[in-house]
Amino acid sequence: MTTQVIVLNGGSSSGKTGIARCLQAILPLPWISLSVDDLLRALPPSLLDSGSGIGFGQSGEVTIGAGFREMEAAWLTGVAAMARAGARIIIDDVFLGGAVAKERVRSRLDGLEVLWVGVYCDPTIATGREIARGDRVRGMAARQAEIVHRGVEYDIEVDTSHTESLDCARVIAAGVV
Amino acid sequence: MTTQVIVLNGGSSSGKTGIARCLQAILPLPWISLSVDDLLRALPPSLLDSGSGIGFGQSGEVTIGAGFREMEAAWLTGVAAMARAGARIIIDDVFLGGAVAKERVRSRLDGLEVLWVGVYCDPTIATGREIARGDRVRGMAARQAEIVHRGVEYDIEVDTSHTESLDCARVIAAGVV
Amino acid sequence: MTTQVIVLNGGSSSGKTGIARCLQAILPLPWISLSVDDLLRALPPSLLDSGSGIGFGQSGEVTIGAGFREMEAAWLTGVAAMARAGARIIIDDVFLGGAVAKERVRSRLDGLEVLWVGVYCDPTIATGREIARGDRVRGMAARQAEIVHRGVEYDIEVDTSHTESLDCARVIAAGVV
Amino acid sequence: MTTQVIVLNGGSSSGKTGIARCLQAILPLPWISLSVDDLLRALPPSLLDSGSGIGFGQSGEVTIGAGFREMEAAWLTGVAAMARAGARIIIDDVFLGGAVAKERVRSRLDGLEVLWVGVYCDPTIATGREIARGDRVRGMAARQAEIVHRGVEYDIEVDTSHTESLDCARVIAAGVV
Repeated sequence: MTTQVIVLNGGSSSGKTGIARCLQAILPLPWISLSVDDLLRALPPSLLDSGSGIGFGQSGEVTIGAGFREMEAAWLTGVAAMARAGARIIIDDVFLGGAVAKERVRSRLDGLEVLWVGVYCDPTIATGREIARGDRVRGMAARQAEIVHRGVEYDIEVDTSHTESLDCARVIAAGVV
Repeated sequence: MTTQVIVLNGGSSSGKTGIARCLQAILPLPWISLSVDDLLRALPPSLLDSGSGIGFGQSGEVTIGAGFREMEAAWLTGVAAMARAGARIIIDDVFLGGAVAKERVRSRLDGLEVLWVGVYCDPTIATGREIARGDRVRGMAARQAEIVHRGVEYDIEVDTSHTESLDCARVIAAGVV
Repeated sequence: MTTQVIVLNGGSSSGKTGIARCLQAILPLPWISLSVDDLLRALPPSLLDSGSGIGFGQSGEVTIGAGFREMEAAWLTGVAAMARAGARIIIDDVFLGGAVAKERVRSRLDGLEVLWVGVYCDPTIATGREIARGDRVRGMAARQAEIVHRGVEYDIEVDTSHTESLDCARVIAAGVV
Repeated sequence: MTTQVIVLNGGSSSGKTGIARCLQAILPLPWISLSVDDLLRALPPSLLDSGSGIGFGQSGEVTIGAGFREMEAAWLTGVAAMARAGARIIIDDVFLGGAVAKERVRSRLDGLEVLWVGVYCDPTIATGREIARGDRVRGMAARQAEIVHRGVEYDIEVDTSHTESLDCARVIAAGVV
């Protein structure tokens, strides 16, 4: 079986995007990198601040309504279709609901060969990186660091606390078949 | 029939993205906005500078290889699947090949209710806007302004030369059913 | 006398930055372009959300405290020093206080040969462009369109409502000596 | 004596900007953060690709002409004037010429109380981070990692190879008086 999708799950500021870029650079075949952040960028204003959409509180809490869930489901269905059409896809996501969130993604990717990767980062270290990057609401990193992994099983786990993105990517690349 | 996809076709700096944002703001239901620029952002470095990928020359010429075409086909297949799954989608694209490019997109959107929109802009004016925005290679606007419309038929045509993005969006919105 | 500084004053989304880029492209000598937005980017978080700093309300209102004023004064003093050291400078600014704000800037630029430019834009048109660009709080354009010009005298006035940035830049460039 | 300017010198992708943001977050008084990248953004196109300006080669080499040097000198003179006018300033820079480059900066900051900080990073690690960030020409990190420190004396040295930005910032903050 050939890996068709790599799912990177981790909290905000855990280093998923950097790992995705390194994977693109070192994997021998071309991989497309998509993120739930791309979906956010594509949404209309009405789904970015209403009760039905996705909201970001001042201390890093995220609230999600039914309108966002519908769009997310359609988006994932489309990303799965890209993979079925032959594109190799890296998805970076934040499983706010832990195992329930993974199941939501898994059901859309049904029939595809998926490599599930947990991207861990110590909450204190992720908080420091959140300050250093300066473009995220303070508090998201700490809130999400652990809950996104609750009950989630992975094929590969990496921890960016003391390992560089490129080295994490090498571990993941070794698991791509 | 209910419109499921709006395709905006126009040359670089013709104002497609601004029109898409205005459409998202004024249409009563939520629409997702996706662009071929999103695909470019998702590509690995190996498809951004090789003969097989997409390349941007110093005077605004664009060269496209087989590797990019494969990714584009898979991406369009996925975007069509998003629409079939219930998301309303605005696609902004640049039909470098005119009617041939439209047919490539149309075939992927088969069975969907599509509103085809031509976004025109006088080449001299688009060139001035290219200078004003400052983030595009000089020359793309002029090279693409006319060729992207060659042989392409539309449901609606707008011209941003002397009409604001929001007013163009209002014309398009009136055609959404 | 040789022009040393060009000050572009106009409300949010009136088109100042685009004009500045066009000026840099068409003026025969090299000009540095600086904006009050550059100052905002350089500020610490503590001056971006406190009573002492600068705050942006949800309907486009801007509140300014003493801490921001101190930084702004030092920044303007420095920009004036760059001009005195021989760099040609384009400053783009928003005179929220009208004539009082102009006097604050003028006093820092004392002794320099300044070309004062008013960048006008119809409030309704500026509001449409604010929607089209999508990266500004809704309401700033309308609130600022007229108040920034109250009591302010200029050497040159341009109006971007129906004139392209590049054409406005040409009018301004003709006044640079 | 009170520290008026903090100069962070290090190669591309060594982590200077992240440290600067952390310093802004933890220092009790407000500090303005400016970078040679801000100067690059302010330059006209004519100084970004000509023999007289600053050029970036495809393997990470940087070439600098007389036109850029003039602008840089005026910019530094202005930044020094901001500090003399009372703003606390963090400058992040890349001393491509080592000790000669430091002397160029030092002469402009004459009379100010400056804290000189060397930001080191192992070239291999910086190269990995260059890949992970994805927005820099490959090769700059490795080329600059060591040469920027040649013959340069510092008040404080930090090494981001195995120390987080926030922890480096704490070491530097302890030296601010």
